[in-house]
Amino acid sequence: MKTHIQTRREFLRTSTLAAASLPFVSAMSARAQTAAPAKKLGFALAGLGSLSTHQIAPALQKTNFCRLAGIITGHPAKAAQWKAQYNIPDKNIYDYDSMEKMADNPDIDVVYVVTPNGLHADHTIKAARAGKHVLCEKPMEVSPERCQQMIDACRAANRLLAVGYRLHFDPNHLECVRLAREKVLGSVNLIEAEYGFRIGDPTQWRLNRALSGGGPLMDVGIYALQAARYLSGEEPVSVSAVATNNDPAKFKDIEESISWQLKFPGGALASCNCTYNFNGLDRFRAFADRGWFEMAPAYGYGGLQGRRSDGKWAAFPPMDQFAAEMDDFAQCILNGQPTKVPGEEGLRDLKIMMAIYEAARTGKTISFT
Amino acid sequence: MKTHIQTRREFLRTSTLAAASLPFVSAMSARAQTAAPAKKLGFALAGLGSLSTHQIAPALQKTNFCRLAGIITGHPAKAAQWKAQYNIPDKNIYDYDSMEKMADNPDIDVVYVVTPNGLHADHTIKAARAGKHVLCEKPMEVSPERCQQMIDACRAANRLLAVGYRLHFDPNHLECVRLAREKVLGSVNLIEAEYGFRIGDPTQWRLNRALSGGGPLMDVGIYALQAARYLSGEEPVSVSAVATNNDPAKFKDIEESISWQLKFPGGALASCNCTYNFNGLDRFRAFADRGWFEMAPAYGYGGLQGRRSDGKWAAFPPMDQFAAEMDDFAQCILNGQPTKVPGEEGLRDLKIMMAIYEAARTGKTISFT
Repeated sequence: MKTHIQTRREFLRTSTLAAASLPFVSAMSARAQTAAPAKKLGFALAGLGSLSTHQIAPALQKTNFCRLAGIITGHPAKAAQWKAQYNIPDKNIYDYDSMEKMADNPDIDVVYVVTPNGLHADHTIKAARAGKHVLCEKPMEVSPERCQQMIDACRAANRLLAVGYRLHFDPNHLECVRLAREKVLGSVNLIEAEYGFRIGDPTQWRLNRALSGGGPLMDVGIYALQAARYLSGEEPVSVSAVATNNDPAKFKDIEESISWQLKFPGGALASCNCTYNFNGLDRFRAFADRGWFEMAPAYGYGGLQGRRSDGKWAAFPPMDQFAAEMDDFAQCILNGQPTKVPGEEGLRDLKIMMAIYEAARTGKTISFT
Repeated sequence: MKTHIQTRREFLRTSTLAAASLPFVSAMSARAQTAAPAKKLGFALAGLGSLSTHQIAPALQKTNFCRLAGIITGHPAKAAQWKAQYNIPDKNIYDYDSMEKMADNPDIDVVYVVTPNGLHADHTIKAARAGKHVLCEKPMEVSPERCQQMIDACRAANRLLAVGYRLHFDPNHLECVRLAREKVLGSVNLIEAEYGFRIGDPTQWRLNRALSGGGPLMDVGIYALQAARYLSGEEPVSVSAVATNNDPAKFKDIEESISWQLKFPGGALASCNCTYNFNGLDRFRAFADRGWFEMAPAYGYGGLQGRRSDGKWAAFPPMDQFAAEMDDFAQCILNGQPTKVPGEEGLRDLKIMMAIYEAARTGKTISFT
């Protein structure tokens, strides 16, 4: 265990500089000035559930550098519906067993993996082997080992791999990161972050550990974890956690709620909560030397609201987080630049989330040092 | 250790019913109807610092059942000033070495102990032995052992002992307890509670462990702990905690900030933060099945603000928490009733705070079961 932790911590430390600090702030403004290309990159969506249907496909229509070129689905009825709605040619429609044939299809440059968490590695690796770049929804997978397999597969295929951390492209969050990095209100000392909701249908895959990898931590807690990491600008040195399960019939093998605390090397603390049991948990607040700033609501697709203790919050115009995320990924591909949300960033979260689960299970603070 | 924990948990369980549940809600309304007595009870203030000067003495002027009858101070200059300002006769002015002589002074019925935490037992025991009832500021003392000595001394003298938990008399907090007990928005699942401020003068007694017993947890964190306990209506079964100290020159032997999590037997969690390092931490929010309710600011002497997710919060008129607290104690004495904030309640908090410190020190969840 000790060796494992050291490896984990070492990895966290060495890979932080590449993704979690300044690029978070600078990437959007720098890339927004790139001229629209003659040919947009073709995206194929793998998994046609609610997120693809209601967010990603509509967002693709708003992008400058992307177009919805294909779909990958195990449901023929969905394929027919999407084909009609988005005018997708039959040759660009695949199922999960035929993904390797995409290698011969120049219409498709990127596969956006929107399937259940525990299938991300399988679909990512298939896409990479077919020569496609991969944008994968969060959480990246259900274990660090599978995340590493995805990274290795994309590296071997010389394809770019990004994780769908849409809030890295939201101007409200970018502003909060700026406030933290530039110490506008002083250094950040404490981050409170929480996200949760009361989950419905007890038969959905999110309640099935094999497919989800865990409960609300994997699904929504990851946003609070992300906020703690990008507001502190550091990787945690230790974590403690407490989990509850008051409805074991519904939550058979996942947590119902989990609260955790992160300690950062610079001295800041993060105190985080997430749940599948009740609504109203949608906030972060960063307490700095001379005041605080917060987002509440913080993590939705729109309607985010920022505040500062000095009253100086300036609202940002509405935007589409998914369109910004996909355009950024397309520009990284087109310009040969690294993404600020690479597979290594997804892997970091998985390693920390596994430590959170371990802390809750053992009742012991897990140290990364 | 195991035996100690069992004893602690056993105590918490058996003493909960007496103080932390329904009496919290009902005491104020029931006693408010008692007619004002011909003779008000005489209060002597022990310790003439800021709290006595700016809050308690002015509050005494607003009470129905109390009057400022005497003072106990080690500072002759303060004695002279208070004597002049409040027309206090020389025979009612004591120092800490002459407290036993109060036994012969019928003007004084109650000693309100407002000295540094680590002197509470000494002053409480002296007052009890002089035949006086004791109202003691929070935290009750710096260790459970000393709290027990205070309880024993008052019991032996057949005098009433209460702890100055002023928020048990604030209508905003009483309303929140009502919302929780009556499950107006359903059962409470998660309580977030936090209180803190940036402490000034590094030479003050609050930064000296011998006098304070600890840092912000003992001073302001205790309010968040109290909120977690009276909003859950239960005693915790376990606690985990993380502490930081980024300024060891200033915080020589106390924590700078501490975050802790409590698990309650009914399944609720509490996630709490406190600090001496920054301002802006002054809130609790209780997340229930069908919505939330909160106070922010939550813990000050006035200006408290409640909110409900359904918008139905009804504001309460301003009141004086200290006047209500003292009048309640006077009525308990006059009517021979138990107080809802007895020494046992202060002892419970001390036991839990010691467990919070132990959890932070050892990195292990401390279980009370």
